[in-house]
Amino acid sequence: MRNNCYIGIDTGGTKIAAALFSAGGDILTQDTVLLEGAGGSDAAALMKILIRSLQEHAAREDLDLRGIGICIPGIVYHDSGNVWAPNIPGWDNYPLLRELRAEFGDTAAIRIDSDRACCILAETWLGAAQGCRNAIFVAVGTGIGAGILVDGRILRGHGDIAGATGWMALQRPYEEKYDACGCFEYYASGDGIARTAAEIAKSKTGYSGPLSGTALRAEDVFSAYRKDDPVARETFENVIGLWGMAVANYVSLFNPEKVIFGGGVFGPAGQFLPRIIREARKWAQPIGITQVSIELTTLGKDAGLFGAGRLAILQEKKETS
Amino acid sequence: MRNNCYIGIDTGGTKIAAALFSAGGDILTQDTVLLEGAGGSDAAALMKILIRSLQEHAAREDLDLRGIGICIPGIVYHDSGNVWAPNIPGWDNYPLLRELRAEFGDTAAIRIDSDRACCILAETWLGAAQGCRNAIFVAVGTGIGAGILVDGRILRGHGDIAGATGWMALQRPYEEKYDACGCFEYYASGDGIARTAAEIAKSKTGYSGPLSGTALRAEDVFSAYRKDDPVARETFENVIGLWGMAVANYVSLFNPEKVIFGGGVFGPAGQFLPRIIREARKWAQPIGITQVSIELTTLGKDAGLFGAGRLAILQEKKETS
Repeated sequence: MRNNCYIGIDTGGTKIAAALFSAGGDILTQDTVLLEGAGGSDAAALMKILIRSLQEHAAREDLDLRGIGICIPGIVYHDSGNVWAPNIPGWDNYPLLRELRAEFGDTAAIRIDSDRACCILAETWLGAAQGCRNAIFVAVGTGIGAGILVDGRILRGHGDIAGATGWMALQRPYEEKYDACGCFEYYASGDGIARTAAEIAKSKTGYSGPLSGTALRAEDVFSAYRKDDPVARETFENVIGLWGMAVANYVSLFNPEKVIFGGGVFGPAGQFLPRIIREARKWAQPIGITQVSIELTTLGKDAGLFGAGRLAILQEKKETS
Repeated sequence: MRNNCYIGIDTGGTKIAAALFSAGGDILTQDTVLLEGAGGSDAAALMKILIRSLQEHAAREDLDLRGIGICIPGIVYHDSGNVWAPNIPGWDNYPLLRELRAEFGDTAAIRIDSDRACCILAETWLGAAQGCRNAIFVAVGTGIGAGILVDGRILRGHGDIAGATGWMALQRPYEEKYDACGCFEYYASGDGIARTAAEIAKSKTGYSGPLSGTALRAEDVFSAYRKDDPVARETFENVIGLWGMAVANYVSLFNPEKVIFGGGVFGPAGQFLPRIIREARKWAQPIGITQVSIELTTLGKDAGLFGAGRLAILQEKKETS
């Protein structure tokens, strides 16, 4: 009997990563292609090339390809299989599932899901949330999103857009600047860290440190923090407070077993975890906070890729059960 | 063939209400008993008397009693069937399910659930959430709790205490006064409305209106609002803002189809619904807010009782399926 294998594809704004997985989660081979601005059916064509190449690898190794899972940086509409990804041109209700099924539907089960969903799936499979039925992955990168597992299943909501935690209202009054991305994300995403630092630097008369310039990035704030810059210190004081409030709200509403921070910012913000936990303890439902473990992802940048592999396995089981 | 019937029991802090339901949700007969401070096994004994009386009614009418559902003002631990209800003395991990099964387990399926869960169940059965798979019932009374339906199932969380929305962090900085009940509940529950009014009255030099006294109740604030009292106006301005932020956070996290306000405060706060919706629109994920309908309960004070009846029906189906 041949061993089963599965393809996982992680689509980002700049590249597509792909891996061939064993059922146990080992990566048998992997490959990456740069998008270089490609969108629409060109981006889908690049994805198909990657899949074909892994398909051929599987055939050469005499492995049985059973499923293909795709991770998308945006929204997947589960009724249609269409996708919306703001960073890939032309992927606005793009019929990705239909396209992939036309070529690969006879050989393997195919499933597409959002990066949020893939990250929490990956954590339950190989990461910090193994064995959990109620857990939340908070992805803090350019923006902020959450993958939410409720009683063993991904929370999708009425229109497949649950987990838009960047829009959480955490401090009053409302300001127009929140319009584009929401209050929490405005201050506490990667871009938000830079915005918060710029606002604080501007308000500090006489400050002429490294964060007084324009076009700040989150990296600049982390770097200034390492040099004990007062604006960077105040920025993280502020942002850590918001991360703690967010965790508290997840705990009070969802009563999860784990809250896991990941994304590009965690990363370097991992050093703040004890302070985030302290902030969360202040606000959260007091029994719920004793039942949760607040952790950092152990999968790093590969959470989406592993999640796509897991999707493929779950979809195969679904279609053959 | 005899018609089926079901018993629903709604346990409050001061009384136990009971009804015999048809499968379609008609109340065939109902009864109430005052607790008068009874707790522990005395409270359970009063509940058993009510159940026996309805059992006899069913027998007289030649109805087949299939299920008993119990609504508890607190937490139900689903593994043990034990209950915790802060307003009933001695119901601190009290083995209610075991007690009821000992007497009625042979005749009917029995299920116990929290008032939060019962209220959202009632709404999906006979109220504003019929046909919904993703909906939230916000019960604003002495405290604030939420019954949350995710993909057709009640959200329970890891330790059966999900929905503790009164603990939501909505404004900074943290203040010690939130310790006992959480930030949202501190200002925006029934008791919170009175607290907010008292704080505002105290801060207004020269104010000597109806809200300048001590021992305010929410009713006093509603009554002063009808007379256009400035402290009452400012109180509701404040509280409406928080209710709107809470709705926004449900929308962004859960992407529900309905958010339904109920509990003793809605009731009189129903007049503010358009303003709550306006506030929610400011903060919420902009697509999610177009997919949700924000409404008032149509079941009034009977939501818990109807929910208990629904529990009984669902439990029967579960045990016979």
